[in-house]
Amino acid sequence: MNVPAMKLHWSPRSPFVRKVMVAAHELGLAEQIRTVRTVVRMGKPNEELLPDNPLSKIPTLALDNGQVLFDSLTIIEYLDDLAGGKLFPPKPARFEALTRHALGTGLLDLLILFRNERDKPVERQTAEWLDSFAAKTRAVLDRLEREAPSLSATPFDIGHIAIGCALSYLDFRFADMHWRADHPAIAAWHAGFSARPSVRATEAVDD
Amino acid sequence: MNVPAMKLHWSPRSPFVRKVMVAAHELGLAEQIRTVRTVVRMGKPNEELLPDNPLSKIPTLALDNGQVLFDSLTIIEYLDDLAGGKLFPPKPARFEALTRHALGTGLLDLLILFRNERDKPVERQTAEWLDSFAAKTRAVLDRLEREAPSLSATPFDIGHIAIGCALSYLDFRFADMHWRADHPAIAAWHAGFSARPSVRATEAVDD
Repeated sequence: MNVPAMKLHWSPRSPFVRKVMVAAHELGLAEQIRTVRTVVRMGKPNEELLPDNPLSKIPTLALDNGQVLFDSLTIIEYLDDLAGGKLFPPKPARFEALTRHALGTGLLDLLILFRNERDKPVERQTAEWLDSFAAKTRAVLDRLEREAPSLSATPFDIGHIAIGCALSYLDFRFADMHWRADHPAIAAWHAGFSARPSVRATEAVDD
Repeated sequence: MNVPAMKLHWSPRSPFVRKVMVAAHELGLAEQIRTVRTVVRMGKPNEELLPDNPLSKIPTLALDNGQVLFDSLTIIEYLDDLAGGKLFPPKPARFEALTRHALGTGLLDLLILFRNERDKPVERQTAEWLDSFAAKTRAVLDRLEREAPSLSATPFDIGHIAIGCALSYLDFRFADMHWRADHPAIAAWHAGFSARPSVRATEAVDD
């Protein structure tokens, strides 16, 4: 395949970056991507990132022809196209996969907000938001528990990547939630996900 | 075209719902969609929506065969497929369109957070977040100002819908920002967007 030089604005702990890197490993493209450590924070735009992405978000992929791609789904679809198409099933299964992707990515969006709120000084927290974030997280886990059999029966795709990375992030930042206790089926699925070489290759390591 | 019965969890003021409805009008499918008013709030999951979407987010599209689709991008791609394909250009232009879509949708995500923070009691606000949201919004507007000529030169697609709906939301919830003053080129583009029948048909009206 004809692969352009690619620079990825990257961070070892961003779950959205991890989605892209898991996909890149699954597609055999990880070695083609030059990663550049880029720190983004809710409370401070990264001035060096803004020319490539004015939202100051990662992942952001810059190609050597000057083209810049984001968000994670756009980047993964681009990489998938370079590799001949593996992670997006044909229609109509595509729409089920994209909805699973939206469920996993929506869980990540929710967990980022949850963590930002939880880590504030208590006098600035909004209690009903914390309750709401916890209730939605439970609702997603309960749904995933029911969907675990069909997730296991479906060839690995973009939906599995998003859901798997979201559950790994739950382990990483919400370990005290002990989500596996009440969700054995999706926990078993996640154990299989975590054993994939693409997932092991992208584990966050402490500095 | 063979169109299934579709129920859309909908709200008149959700900019993400509006993206879907603008697309439906552009595709000639608006009359086929039964809209159901569904209220979602950051601080309270909608219990009636959770069975269809455990994230408690709108838009969520339920088909008569029991299949449920979200988020807005997934729904629009599904509708576009039903209508024969109009709003997603062929590759490689597809990836530019998806990145513009991510820019517009990312601006919306940012503005929702901005509004939630701004509308809190001042003692619970985080000042650096408000500054950061404002700086990112300016960075996006400055980018759009530079991209206005290419936006005008490109056939109307999913990217235009997201950017247009985001700027309309800026008018609706951040009127005091007076974004047009420093951004005449993208303001002119937005005037053309706002004149489209699909956009006029989806204007929020007060109850």
